[in-house]
Amino acid sequence: MRNPWTKLASRLVYENPWIRLREDTVIRPDGGQGIYGVVEVRPSIGVLAINDRDELLLVGQWRYPAGRYCWEIPRGGSHGGETAVQAVAARELREEAGVEAASWTPLISVDVNNGITTDTEHLFLATGLTSTQAKPDPEEEIAVRWVPFNEAVQMAVRGELTEVCTVAAILLLSHLRRR
Amino acid sequence: MRNPWTKLASRLVYENPWIRLREDTVIRPDGGQGIYGVVEVRPSIGVLAINDRDELLLVGQWRYPAGRYCWEIPRGGSHGGETAVQAVAARELREEAGVEAASWTPLISVDVNNGITTDTEHLFLATGLTSTQAKPDPEEEIAVRWVPFNEAVQMAVRGELTEVCTVAAILLLSHLRRR
Repeated sequence: MRNPWTKLASRLVYENPWIRLREDTVIRPDGGQGIYGVVEVRPSIGVLAINDRDELLLVGQWRYPAGRYCWEIPRGGSHGGETAVQAVAARELREEAGVEAASWTPLISVDVNNGITTDTEHLFLATGLTSTQAKPDPEEEIAVRWVPFNEAVQMAVRGELTEVCTVAAILLLSHLRRR
Repeated sequence: MRNPWTKLASRLVYENPWIRLREDTVIRPDGGQGIYGVVEVRPSIGVLAINDRDELLLVGQWRYPAGRYCWEIPRGGSHGGETAVQAVAARELREEAGVEAASWTPLISVDVNNGITTDTEHLFLATGLTSTQAKPDPEEEIAVRWVPFNEAVQMAVRGELTEVCTVAAILLLSHLRRR
């Protein structure tokens, strides 16, 4: 499965603290010359945090690009220099929801919008939860809600949870529990 | 759930046939002024196409941003002017895999990277399949593979299928079949 694309040139179009957009000049798989705009995003994480009452932690926030309010599992991107994704997950869980976890289980890693972005999101299960102090980023205004896990599964199936990593993670854990 | 963000200004940074990047100047939820870079993507679709032998259609291609080969359900974005997402799904299925479907069932719609992009992907189940002529875009070099649905579920659970809409759609259908 060799790379059928050839990169001829690359220019940085835009950069902010969260994303970089570059436009590559390429030879496409069909041999024609073209461009590819790639949105570079640092690796991200998503956490299924489940408490002793089998409730799943959901965080709610207004998603500016989507233009609406979304309930999701805690998710976030690594900061510059952070390389250990489980540490990123622990930081996001603590900052967004004020929760610490004694036990971490890596689930799967998923490509999010792999035709456009470089985003890979690493999904974790976190249990053995205790409360600490939340400290969200200034960009975030976050609400916290605990939902019985089986109800969260129904919310995903009914399309009430729309964020795709949240849907995939919940349905994955539901599947693993059934085995 | 009102919008806690205020947009003060917006400028178009970049545009190609697939994406537009704009940078908004905003008042954040915490009252501070900042910027938000939004990647505008047209609505997209993903299709679980299942044949009479209960095999799932997977398409394989090198994903340039991810830098590796990925097997996924047929997915694609709407072109300018296309508004009926089911028609987009039928076109993508025909172009990428040379398959037409007699029966279409809308599943759920998911946000893909809702902190950065506007992408909403509409997931469909397509059955009653017949073969026609594939006609991929020049940007695409696509392989086609039929996998028993239960095996596709295992591939998703084991992390061998990494594209997140593919994982979510397969696990959703698996859940719906179990009910």
